[in-house]
Amino acid sequence: MSLERFEKKKTLDLRKKHIGPSCKIFFSHDPIKIVQAKGQYMYDEKEQSYLDCINNVAHVGHCHPDVVKAGAQQMELLNTNSRFLHDNLVVYAQRLQATLPEKLSVCYFVNSGSEANDLALRLAWQYSGHKDIITLENAYHGHVSSLIDISPYKFHQLSDAEQNQFVHVAPSPDVYRGKYRADHPDPATAYADEVKDIINKVHKKGGKIAAFIAESLQSCGGQVIPPVGYFQQVAEHVRKAGGVFIADEVQVGFGRVGTHFWAFQLQGEDFVPDIVTMGKPIGNGHPMSCVVTTREVAEAFMSSGMEYFNTFGGNPVSCAIGLAVLDVIVKEDLQGNALRVGRYLTNLLEKQKEKHPLVGDIRGCGLFVGVELVRDRSKLTPATAEAQEVIYKLKEQHILLSADGPHRNVLKFKPPMCFTTEDADLVVEKIDHILTVLIVISKQLLYPHSVQ
Amino acid sequence: MSLERFEKKKTLDLRKKHIGPSCKIFFSHDPIKIVQAKGQYMYDEKEQSYLDCINNVAHVGHCHPDVVKAGAQQMELLNTNSRFLHDNLVVYAQRLQATLPEKLSVCYFVNSGSEANDLALRLAWQYSGHKDIITLENAYHGHVSSLIDISPYKFHQLSDAEQNQFVHVAPSPDVYRGKYRADHPDPATAYADEVKDIINKVHKKGGKIAAFIAESLQSCGGQVIPPVGYFQQVAEHVRKAGGVFIADEVQVGFGRVGTHFWAFQLQGEDFVPDIVTMGKPIGNGHPMSCVVTTREVAEAFMSSGMEYFNTFGGNPVSCAIGLAVLDVIVKEDLQGNALRVGRYLTNLLEKQKEKHPLVGDIRGCGLFVGVELVRDRSKLTPATAEAQEVIYKLKEQHILLSADGPHRNVLKFKPPMCFTTEDADLVVEKIDHILTVLIVISKQLLYPHSVQ
Repeated sequence: MSLERFEKKKTLDLRKKHIGPSCKIFFSHDPIKIVQAKGQYMYDEKEQSYLDCINNVAHVGHCHPDVVKAGAQQMELLNTNSRFLHDNLVVYAQRLQATLPEKLSVCYFVNSGSEANDLALRLAWQYSGHKDIITLENAYHGHVSSLIDISPYKFHQLSDAEQNQFVHVAPSPDVYRGKYRADHPDPATAYADEVKDIINKVHKKGGKIAAFIAESLQSCGGQVIPPVGYFQQVAEHVRKAGGVFIADEVQVGFGRVGTHFWAFQLQGEDFVPDIVTMGKPIGNGHPMSCVVTTREVAEAFMSSGMEYFNTFGGNPVSCAIGLAVLDVIVKEDLQGNALRVGRYLTNLLEKQKEKHPLVGDIRGCGLFVGVELVRDRSKLTPATAEAQEVIYKLKEQHILLSADGPHRNVLKFKPPMCFTTEDADLVVEKIDHILTVLIVISKQLLYPHSVQ
Repeated sequence: MSLERFEKKKTLDLRKKHIGPSCKIFFSHDPIKIVQAKGQYMYDEKEQSYLDCINNVAHVGHCHPDVVKAGAQQMELLNTNSRFLHDNLVVYAQRLQATLPEKLSVCYFVNSGSEANDLALRLAWQYSGHKDIITLENAYHGHVSSLIDISPYKFHQLSDAEQNQFVHVAPSPDVYRGKYRADHPDPATAYADEVKDIINKVHKKGGKIAAFIAESLQSCGGQVIPPVGYFQQVAEHVRKAGGVFIADEVQVGFGRVGTHFWAFQLQGEDFVPDIVTMGKPIGNGHPMSCVVTTREVAEAFMSSGMEYFNTFGGNPVSCAIGLAVLDVIVKEDLQGNALRVGRYLTNLLEKQKEKHPLVGDIRGCGLFVGVELVRDRSKLTPATAEAQEVIYKLKEQHILLSADGPHRNVLKFKPPMCFTTEDADLVVEKIDHILTVLIVISKQLLYPHSVQ
């Protein structure tokens, strides 16, 4: 049976006619039509397979049968709102809580990472009674209007960007390209002190800090791994100012980092955020997400007197799916797999760095890995065009990878968690070949006579 | 097989422990645990059935087999984001477009009514280059922070409500209790002139109108049906000021009003909004929603240069479910059923109005019906406690109804669209009995000796 209704050209034409032109397509000059997917593979209309290194939403593998079954069975029984009592809601909240430090005990179920981060801001504003938010350079926290305001990754795209007066941008704790680098004696303190300085400046202007928000590892911002101890120090400064620490785990949670279930735990046992937001992988593609916070923050939010009602959030189907995802992570030891395959992949990539001068930095935790391409290892000139070339050549060979970061020169690995060492071998072999050819071509361009 | 994992008390205890206390439960002194549902019926853990008169989300009936099947089949095949081409996305956009005036041709798929209304604001701000929004008294448009700002229904609940300076509240076009009533010669013009006055005041202060937003029929605001011609006149004033008209169909769209597919169409063929937002019923409970706008607005939004990406929005599963809902509405003539059963229900309720002085007003279109209870038909004193009493007594008899509006004295009918004339007979018969007893009791309280 054909899984397509229209020929690809017709699909594209209809898309141009009826879908907002701001909604971009991958590889827009020659987009991919995907009709089926399984595990870490996607299939186009001609049944050609693509190795998927980018879909962190399909966390436990595309169309995992346990997740599909849990969703289908609950859809048949009941799908309604959380104003009625239902066991799925409370069991799921209990199970999520068990993965977190004990004081993070109160859940709000919503439909997307954007809804989660917006609610986190509302919680912070209400709890602190303050308005000012500190966010990181290159951060992306979602698409609703309040989050565009705190997402330099987005608002810098606007020509007439008028920064919200309550939003303050701290340097990204990037020890490769940032203000304080690996050669700095204590980058964690140096970056945290930048946050302290912002707090002082805000106070001088009469402002008051409601929250500091950061992805536990910056994803769109360029796969940045903050130095250990940074979050603890930031939290101390922010709490002293009466604000809260929001850890955005939308892209990086649920075991992806391998050693821990949550990426903020990479900072150490002594660090506990006040609010954690979840998203993408939570339902393996089903639209759902969650905000978890402390009893104190939750009580303060309630004390405003305003009900919080989310029509779809926490419905029995979403909770059944969320539970199935947690079960599969355990049953198939996907966190362990992320750790093992992630290390294997990082080692392979380190060898690429030895071989190809274009590879400036390899950084990763589990199956969250970044490869930063630079034209010059001391100047760190971003190899943006080269990164695009790698992505396009890989796509021709049916491997899906993306490039991101402020200079679009960081190759981003965030595959489904069932990714294997064989998959790692394949993609690194292809990258090796592409980089080798790239270097020959650039040498020809730079020194045409020497290569002739 | 038991469909509950815990006894009800344990479910409630876990909920108190792990779910945000701002998330309210229906009938909190004795909540209902629902484990299954079908058509217009919900079933508790003891297999007792409840007639559902309130769940407008379960639009084509709880757990409709066609919708469940479409979702389950697509979940097995593929669930991914809209950066890949997929036929479900474009077919669904085409089908939705076919229900709308031709110029509303560009869709953005998102995950909830809140995401839809927030995006509508972003479109309006970008298209107009203006900031000021006009909203209606008692309006509710969603739970994200930008929408609390334009929802007096919510922000009036806050003790320290500080109204956003860019938000302006126009009188609700309520011809029963509002500023201009049924006895006014031209309430449509009178209410529209109020909007014109606001625009003039905004202009005097140097502001500029980005949008007027209203539910096509106010739902939480008290089941208010604006007089015909109001939207046309408002649109004229708003467009003259460079703003757009946003019709919020989240609660009232998809054939509920019976005579038309969209509630804004009740205003006449000559009225076309610039932006329409959809939600609740669109996926029969699946978390999804949509914003539809004109090519001009969509192009202006794109011209900012900022990509719009929504992780889950427009995924193949959501689109398959959305298509199945549209199919069932046609196949089972649910719009026709809403018209017929809605008229039947309204006629029965009119007889209640003749019989019980407490029934002040019956208003409805299709299966969107409001019954406003008042203690005095000339003073319109809201019969709030009586409305609560009706709701609680109905619940004891296993009928789910709610009371809403600024005084919580409007009984709100918005059942699944498969509601029957027999269901209408049953609920009105019960209401008749409750009102009869209520009147005897209040007479006893008011004139104890005369009744003894």
